[in-house]
Amino acid sequence: MDESAPEQADIDAAAQRIAGRVRRTPVVDLEPGAFGLDHPVALKLELLQHTGSFKPRGAFNRVLSAEIPPAGLVAASGGNHGLAVAHVARTLGVPAEIFVPTSSSPVKVARLRSYGVRAVVGGNYYADAYAASADRARETGALVVHAYEGTATVAGQGTVARELEQQRPDVDTVLVAVGGGGLVGGIAAWYTGRARVVSVEPQRIPTLAAALEHGRPVDVDVSGVAADSLGARRLGTAAYGAVVAAGVVPVLVPDDAILDARRRLWDETRIAAEAGGATALAALTSGAYRPAPGERVAVVVCGGNTDPRDLAPET
Amino acid sequence: MDESAPEQADIDAAAQRIAGRVRRTPVVDLEPGAFGLDHPVALKLELLQHTGSFKPRGAFNRVLSAEIPPAGLVAASGGNHGLAVAHVARTLGVPAEIFVPTSSSPVKVARLRSYGVRAVVGGNYYADAYAASADRARETGALVVHAYEGTATVAGQGTVARELEQQRPDVDTVLVAVGGGGLVGGIAAWYTGRARVVSVEPQRIPTLAAALEHGRPVDVDVSGVAADSLGARRLGTAAYGAVVAAGVVPVLVPDDAILDARRRLWDETRIAAEAGGATALAALTSGAYRPAPGERVAVVVCGGNTDPRDLAPET
Repeated sequence: MDESAPEQADIDAAAQRIAGRVRRTPVVDLEPGAFGLDHPVALKLELLQHTGSFKPRGAFNRVLSAEIPPAGLVAASGGNHGLAVAHVARTLGVPAEIFVPTSSSPVKVARLRSYGVRAVVGGNYYADAYAASADRARETGALVVHAYEGTATVAGQGTVARELEQQRPDVDTVLVAVGGGGLVGGIAAWYTGRARVVSVEPQRIPTLAAALEHGRPVDVDVSGVAADSLGARRLGTAAYGAVVAAGVVPVLVPDDAILDARRRLWDETRIAAEAGGATALAALTSGAYRPAPGERVAVVVCGGNTDPRDLAPET
Repeated sequence: MDESAPEQADIDAAAQRIAGRVRRTPVVDLEPGAFGLDHPVALKLELLQHTGSFKPRGAFNRVLSAEIPPAGLVAASGGNHGLAVAHVARTLGVPAEIFVPTSSSPVKVARLRSYGVRAVVGGNYYADAYAASADRARETGALVVHAYEGTATVAGQGTVARELEQQRPDVDTVLVAVGGGGLVGGIAAWYTGRARVVSVEPQRIPTLAAALEHGRPVDVDVSGVAADSLGARRLGTAAYGAVVAAGVVPVLVPDDAILDARRRLWDETRIAAEAGGATALAALTSGAYRPAPGERVAVVVCGGNTDPRDLAPET
């Protein structure tokens, strides 16, 4: 698999390749005062994407860049990436096997199966499911669709930034949450030299901050409220290259700031984000990132696969 | 109060008057296949508006078109309109009294009070609260902000259509839910002669269909799943004039179609609409309105003040 950071041309090509397969998600401009901020903020509503997160962009680009073998696709994920690969498989009419750890909820497994893919439950952790998926790929010859590794995947996620720049050409700074780094890598690759990209991570899953500190992706512990969507153990290689080249500004936020941002999104805009989807906004609402006067900021709300029960008003 | 149907110029003036006070809500284009439809559909996401519904548009235009007396504002509503008037009062720094029927939940009353307005609970029905608000206005001289009557209110709601036409100039047909008719009246007034407007009502609250049948607004019974947001007893006078002039196409949908549309919105786009906010979409998903081949349709998702607990996946 190609692990170099994507070029802008790769993202242009990805956008052509996946056009009509993904939704052009809208942007809403919020006034100063919203979320308790003293400046405007633009939200890129990527949670309206197919399957409720940005993941189909990368998955479609990966799969449509390759020859699809008769065995179809294989992936490991009990979360957003698994849903995305299942959606891609169903859309393209190819088989897929998704390996999920036993920690995934039966609801998520049932949802995967509703796409007509084979969901294989086994192993306590994501790493186990990933190892099983890799073994299976060697057996069957299926195309591995990784959650965040690979130039094609990162370029696909970068189409979020390409759209955003078309929609809001004057943005100075884009804030984006980080798990394995596919999304931040793609956005960084797109905006390199033209806008600042701020990576926002839970303090308890600092894959990008740790990679910058060590000069290479390293394993971190994974825990906290956003682990279900941002819980990768290390940053991807292609993403790391893009992040370094773009000079991404790393920011960490505590879990309570993430929950507060998620609550504010619901209370003030009726957007039901998952914790990972509210993480980038948390950098603003917590003050972990403070824009300069006049700095025009955009926040990617990257996922909405949440259980909305705890957003209900108290009765 | 002026009860004539607004002209397009009134809506232009309203847009100028309320600019910066309301959010320009985004539109998302959904592909054929979404919601089980065989055609694309554009959703105007008005549930992202301040207070979670379109209501601040009309309330701001009404209030900013008038002299605000020292006693401030008075309104009757236990729902979206009350929140909107409370928001307007807080934003403009004027006092307000909101009369709510005893059937309103304590959560809604508490939310109203969180805006710093006086919420007066009394009477079993909306009509009782409205009568109390009218008495109070005579006592204090406060400005009555009606939920859907009056040219200024209807013109304010019409700014939804003005924005939508800027965002999607090629729309042939706009589907919109109806309670008292402020929103449909404003949208009809804007689009008269240029696009078809389809009014969508719960079968159990057919204010617009009944008005067309009788040649004037008449009282109807109010019940069903969308009564909390669409539960007006009769269509407003200004709205009726606009609806007749525009030749609005009336459609009725059963409650189960509304609940199904609300569920599909959540499952396929992660939009958490209230039942009234999903009612316009229900005309498409239930087949009550079937666009012609190539007809470009837009749906206004007009509110999101919902308890999201019943959107949770089954566990």
